[in-house]
Amino acid sequence: MHVVILTFCLAFRGNKMTSYQTRKGFWHEAVALEGAVTLKVIPSVLIFGILSSVVCGAASFIKDHFQVSFELDISVFGFAGVALGILLVIRLNAGYDRWWEARTLWGGIVNQSRNLIISSITYGPENKTWRDNMVRWTAAFPHVARHTLRSEPLSDEVINLIGPDAASNLTASGHMPSTVAMQIGELLQTATKQGELDGFAFMQIDRERALLIDHLGACERIVLTPLPQIYSLKIRHFILLFLLLLPVAMIPQLNTIWWIPILTMLIAYPLLSLDQIGVELENPFSTANHSHLPLNDISATIERNLLSFLHLKQ
Amino acid sequence: MHVVILTFCLAFRGNKMTSYQTRKGFWHEAVALEGAVTLKVIPSVLIFGILSSVVCGAASFIKDHFQVSFELDISVFGFAGVALGILLVIRLNAGYDRWWEARTLWGGIVNQSRNLIISSITYGPENKTWRDNMVRWTAAFPHVARHTLRSEPLSDEVINLIGPDAASNLTASGHMPSTVAMQIGELLQTATKQGELDGFAFMQIDRERALLIDHLGACERIVLTPLPQIYSLKIRHFILLFLLLLPVAMIPQLNTIWWIPILTMLIAYPLLSLDQIGVELENPFSTANHSHLPLNDISATIERNLLSFLHLKQ
Amino acid sequence: MHVVILTFCLAFRGNKMTSYQTRKGFWHEAVALEGAVTLKVIPSVLIFGILSSVVCGAASFIKDHFQVSFELDISVFGFAGVALGILLVIRLNAGYDRWWEARTLWGGIVNQSRNLIISSITYGPENKTWRDNMVRWTAAFPHVARHTLRSEPLSDEVINLIGPDAASNLTASGHMPSTVAMQIGELLQTATKQGELDGFAFMQIDRERALLIDHLGACERIVLTPLPQIYSLKIRHFILLFLLLLPVAMIPQLNTIWWIPILTMLIAYPLLSLDQIGVELENPFSTANHSHLPLNDISATIERNLLSFLHLKQ
Amino acid sequence: MHVVILTFCLAFRGNKMTSYQTRKGFWHEAVALEGAVTLKVIPSVLIFGILSSVVCGAASFIKDHFQVSFELDISVFGFAGVALGILLVIRLNAGYDRWWEARTLWGGIVNQSRNLIISSITYGPENKTWRDNMVRWTAAFPHVARHTLRSEPLSDEVINLIGPDAASNLTASGHMPSTVAMQIGELLQTATKQGELDGFAFMQIDRERALLIDHLGACERIVLTPLPQIYSLKIRHFILLFLLLLPVAMIPQLNTIWWIPILTMLIAYPLLSLDQIGVELENPFSTANHSHLPLNDISATIERNLLSFLHLKQ
Amino acid sequence: MHVVILTFCLAFRGNKMTSYQTRKGFWHEAVALEGAVTLKVIPSVLIFGILSSVVCGAASFIKDHFQVSFELDISVFGFAGVALGILLVIRLNAGYDRWWEARTLWGGIVNQSRNLIISSITYGPENKTWRDNMVRWTAAFPHVARHTLRSEPLSDEVINLIGPDAASNLTASGHMPSTVAMQIGELLQTATKQGELDGFAFMQIDRERALLIDHLGACERIVLTPLPQIYSLKIRHFILLFLLLLPVAMIPQLNTIWWIPILTMLIAYPLLSLDQIGVELENPFSTANHSHLPLNDISATIERNLLSFLHLKQ
Repeated sequence: MHVVILTFCLAFRGNKMTSYQTRKGFWHEAVALEGAVTLKVIPSVLIFGILSSVVCGAASFIKDHFQVSFELDISVFGFAGVALGILLVIRLNAGYDRWWEARTLWGGIVNQSRNLIISSITYGPENKTWRDNMVRWTAAFPHVARHTLRSEPLSDEVINLIGPDAASNLTASGHMPSTVAMQIGELLQTATKQGELDGFAFMQIDRERALLIDHLGACERIVLTPLPQIYSLKIRHFILLFLLLLPVAMIPQLNTIWWIPILTMLIAYPLLSLDQIGVELENPFSTANHSHLPLNDISATIERNLLSFLHLKQ
Repeated sequence: MHVVILTFCLAFRGNKMTSYQTRKGFWHEAVALEGAVTLKVIPSVLIFGILSSVVCGAASFIKDHFQVSFELDISVFGFAGVALGILLVIRLNAGYDRWWEARTLWGGIVNQSRNLIISSITYGPENKTWRDNMVRWTAAFPHVARHTLRSEPLSDEVINLIGPDAASNLTASGHMPSTVAMQIGELLQTATKQGELDGFAFMQIDRERALLIDHLGACERIVLTPLPQIYSLKIRHFILLFLLLLPVAMIPQLNTIWWIPILTMLIAYPLLSLDQIGVELENPFSTANHSHLPLNDISATIERNLLSFLHLKQ
Repeated sequence: MHVVILTFCLAFRGNKMTSYQTRKGFWHEAVALEGAVTLKVIPSVLIFGILSSVVCGAASFIKDHFQVSFELDISVFGFAGVALGILLVIRLNAGYDRWWEARTLWGGIVNQSRNLIISSITYGPENKTWRDNMVRWTAAFPHVARHTLRSEPLSDEVINLIGPDAASNLTASGHMPSTVAMQIGELLQTATKQGELDGFAFMQIDRERALLIDHLGACERIVLTPLPQIYSLKIRHFILLFLLLLPVAMIPQLNTIWWIPILTMLIAYPLLSLDQIGVELENPFSTANHSHLPLNDISATIERNLLSFLHLKQ
Repeated sequence: MHVVILTFCLAFRGNKMTSYQTRKGFWHEAVALEGAVTLKVIPSVLIFGILSSVVCGAASFIKDHFQVSFELDISVFGFAGVALGILLVIRLNAGYDRWWEARTLWGGIVNQSRNLIISSITYGPENKTWRDNMVRWTAAFPHVARHTLRSEPLSDEVINLIGPDAASNLTASGHMPSTVAMQIGELLQTATKQGELDGFAFMQIDRERALLIDHLGACERIVLTPLPQIYSLKIRHFILLFLLLLPVAMIPQLNTIWWIPILTMLIAYPLLSLDQIGVELENPFSTANHSHLPLNDISATIERNLLSFLHLKQ
Repeated sequence: MHVVILTFCLAFRGNKMTSYQTRKGFWHEAVALEGAVTLKVIPSVLIFGILSSVVCGAASFIKDHFQVSFELDISVFGFAGVALGILLVIRLNAGYDRWWEARTLWGGIVNQSRNLIISSITYGPENKTWRDNMVRWTAAFPHVARHTLRSEPLSDEVINLIGPDAASNLTASGHMPSTVAMQIGELLQTATKQGELDGFAFMQIDRERALLIDHLGACERIVLTPLPQIYSLKIRHFILLFLLLLPVAMIPQLNTIWWIPILTMLIAYPLLSLDQIGVELENPFSTANHSHLPLNDISATIERNLLSFLHLKQ
């Protein structure tokens, strides 16, 4: 009984909508350094500063010794900048869309798990063991999905839910989430065969089960398919070309040549940051990225929710 | 009988399409101050004015004492402005999409509630108590969903619908909207078991019930998942960097240096406003934001609609 | 019999794909004035011309008497213009999306009505009265939906279809389209109870009925939810600010000061037009807007189509 | 037997994925003239050249006789250009989206026809006549849909499939595609009544039939609903205004006035081309447009596919 | 038994989420040459360099001999650049959307195959041969789909799965993927007729089968429908026009005329690259393109997965 109350408390806390209370004001965020994209980008920015100095030195050497002046029209950079902008917009948009699609798919896993268990408990057999098994295997699905997407070994959470034997069988199977779905399917089949689950209710529940596989498959698609390589390569080619030619274009415009590397770095910083954000958002599951989705929290919340449904009916 | 008529009148008034009659003309809106984003943004704009003065002072001090002039090329700011524009566009778009998706999901809750009750009343048992229970629990769903999304306690509206005992049980349960859905499911199960609800009709009604959970889960996804932090941090980094360097770039262009802080503030105002609109639209449920969705009105309208369906059949 | 032939002719004419034949050539449209957005926008454009003259007068007065010159850098206006452009793009896009979504939803009402009647006539009871009732109530749905969206009273078209008694009951009901859907549901229930409608066919038909409610609910969402107010207010704030400061910025650039109000008006005209188009597209149902959807034609076409199906089977 | 082999060969040739082999290299396409949008646009471009000369003449006449010089600031044209760009982007996007949606809908007609016949042949009665009728009526649907969308009379293809009597009845009916769908529905009803089609299989097949009507209805929506008129009119107003004022703005910038009409035409050419592409893509079914969808090929391919399924089972 | 273990190992290796580990750092990608779009674009870039020299020579010849100077205002190129940008953005976006839609469709083929076999094995007959046939035909579908999309002959993979006789019959059939779907349908029909597959389970499985055809049909749509020709032609017209006039515009701006061809080539490089990326992404299936989808890997993974499900149940 105490366990039940504790579970409820945890579940309730887990469901509190807290994420927005943590958003800070403008000035706090404007000077924050923890978003370590800055740290990842700084080395490349510095390298571009050095390269810019080298280019300036070479240009003035050539000017002095060969009387050849480099007059790259600055308007050329306007057009190149537009092309770069186009590519970065598309990449960022594509990255964000992938990130949000991944979140939506996990939202779907939350919804489908809930519906699966609500329907199973309400329309399914009154057998306590059957219900318990149903909830445990369904609660294991998001954990297993997470491990598959991150190529992790099975965690204790799964072992606690389905027991060590089933867990080791699961590890041995070809595609773990499918194996879990098959297990859920067999529970449904058993209940149907025993006449304790109506055909119509079976259909509704089985549809939710099939959707779980659909959502997971879509997440796998996101993990396995980065942006087309011709994008990422070309974007970086253009950034490199742009930042190497920029100092040449600035020489006739500035009186004091030592300003040029600083300006180059000031321009390199946002360009490389945008490129880096695009890369980070591309794979929303990898824990190596700063803005990866909180899959651990989501699957723990699902587990708590489903267990609370079970207690509700008893 | 009078109550019925009164309910109809209320329902009718509630359904009148009135929102557009309140849109005012161009000039009225162009000078309106009630859209308090302006008030939220003004302090930061003033701070940027002060910072701009400080930067100008420092620059002229350095120029006078060290003979070092700051000649940041203004075209640099064109490119930085494009990068900022890209990020603000994406953020605004993403914010608006979230806002509109949230509204669409609540529109789905309206539709699914209606269909659930229309079908229950038309195809379900003629038992008055059963119908009454069905309508009350379905009408409670949007209220409960609203409370969950806003982390509010249960309101009197819910207690009036389902009674104080059920309400306190509901509060104790892990995930309130799922508990309501489970209650609806049990009513369906009872009717099916008693042979008063056909299997095909059950399936149609149960699908609507499952969609209610899907819509709510999607709203929770929106509440719990703000934009990736690398966005909001980077956008504000860029705004800060841009507005700090802008005065330096304007020094050689303007004769009278006291114009620079005013210009900086004129540029800061739209940038910070766009940033603030993006933040406000990100969480469409919070009553702390000006453009939050009218969830109270929507759930009250659903309740009135569903009750009127009940009276229609009697 | 003659009535049938006449109905066919009307139906055929009604279905002819004629809208594109009426598109005129470039020059005809480029000088057309009937798109009265121009007329709605002209007053504000003139007011901005007057304001611009006032600003110029004040500026030259201050310049002459206090030796203070206004040197707003024109590049500032580039950035402000980009911000304005961003907002106008998003608003226009959002407006067009709403308009097209509304049209798509009405296309859905067309499709669902057709499928509902095709299936009812093909799979339903051979009873002539039942079929007639089914067609009449289904044909009444789009009319009723139109009246609800426009807050109009019931038209003669509805009264002719369902008779004056049912029409007055309908007016008295809380949500008219739901009442019509309930009536269709009862016809289906009757046929099922009498064993003249198979369960599977019932399910298919009932799904189309439920979709009618979904489509209508989505249209109500569009009517009841304008763009977030922080958008429309801010856009108009920015337009006002931009057009008031523009003359100040143009003073040092132009020799002849009387050109400035004309230029301001030339810039105000497209900005205000885009704003006005956004407003018009926001509510695609209101007959007060020029580009409102032809709901009268669409619902009349549905009625003709459905009646012709009825005659086809007799 | 020979007919069968011939049909297979045709079907196979029809299914070969050949469209991309015909894409030519950059230079071949860059100088191609067959994309006759150029030819449609040239007259308007020339008219703008003439108008430009007239404007220049008038301007120099006024300048000489009244000492009034026209100093339209060129930056004004930057902003007007951005506004034009916004509108053209939205229009082009909307046009392309309509075009691609129309193609997707016809892809849906392909898929639904295939599934309808695969399921009918596999799960339906073994009766040869029934199957033959099913295939013929389903194969007639895309032809009839094409004729309806293009307001064409029935072609020989349809008459060959369903015979002259049914074809003349079809022509007399109100909405031809619905009549075909009704015919398919009656075949399904017959098979169900005779106990040769299972209820579950019936439901799957009937859903595909209903989707055919949905796809066609969506195509009708595209044909019957051009872009909102306030768009097309305003875009052309702006183009006209822009190109008439452009010469005035260029007068003080150029030394040799005879260059201005040539420049105006060089700017008018892409603007008018984009406008024209938008118009062409708006109606993807009309054979008067260059990039209309190959509906004849698609419906012939469907017919061949479906007939080959029939032969496969015999 | 050894075969089973080997299959598991292969399946597991095949499912490891490895694609992101291979993304390299900024500098590695910025100088990579293997993305051979560069190599495809270089020839055209050089040709534009030569053309630019010719134009410059002609211009200076005319200037010297006829005293006619070419003063194309550089701002004209701003507008033309915006028009080009618009078109390239839309094309790139459309290309990427097609690519990602194609990937999503293949993700759907993965999901539907899994669900089809999970349900068949769990709910279908316990007959080993039936299961084996089901898995083999379902595993053959993605291979056959791939061959159809690429117009390839049947590979050994298919022959191994379904045997040489069935394979030659398949090649002789009109539309191979439909024939496979029909075969799956017949297996379902057999099981249903024998009373070993419940109607509800049949419906779920048959829906997955129908979706396979839908996904494949959508892929065929992408292969068979390139972008509207008026796009690709016009974009290349504009690029040609733009790059031919650019040298003329640069003559009065640059002192040393030999810089112009180099600048033209620097501008031509990104423009032509973007055009080429758009072309490559347009057809995501052709192995002639660098960023084509890894269909071989995907269909091999499906085959391994499905076979592992089979072993799991034995």
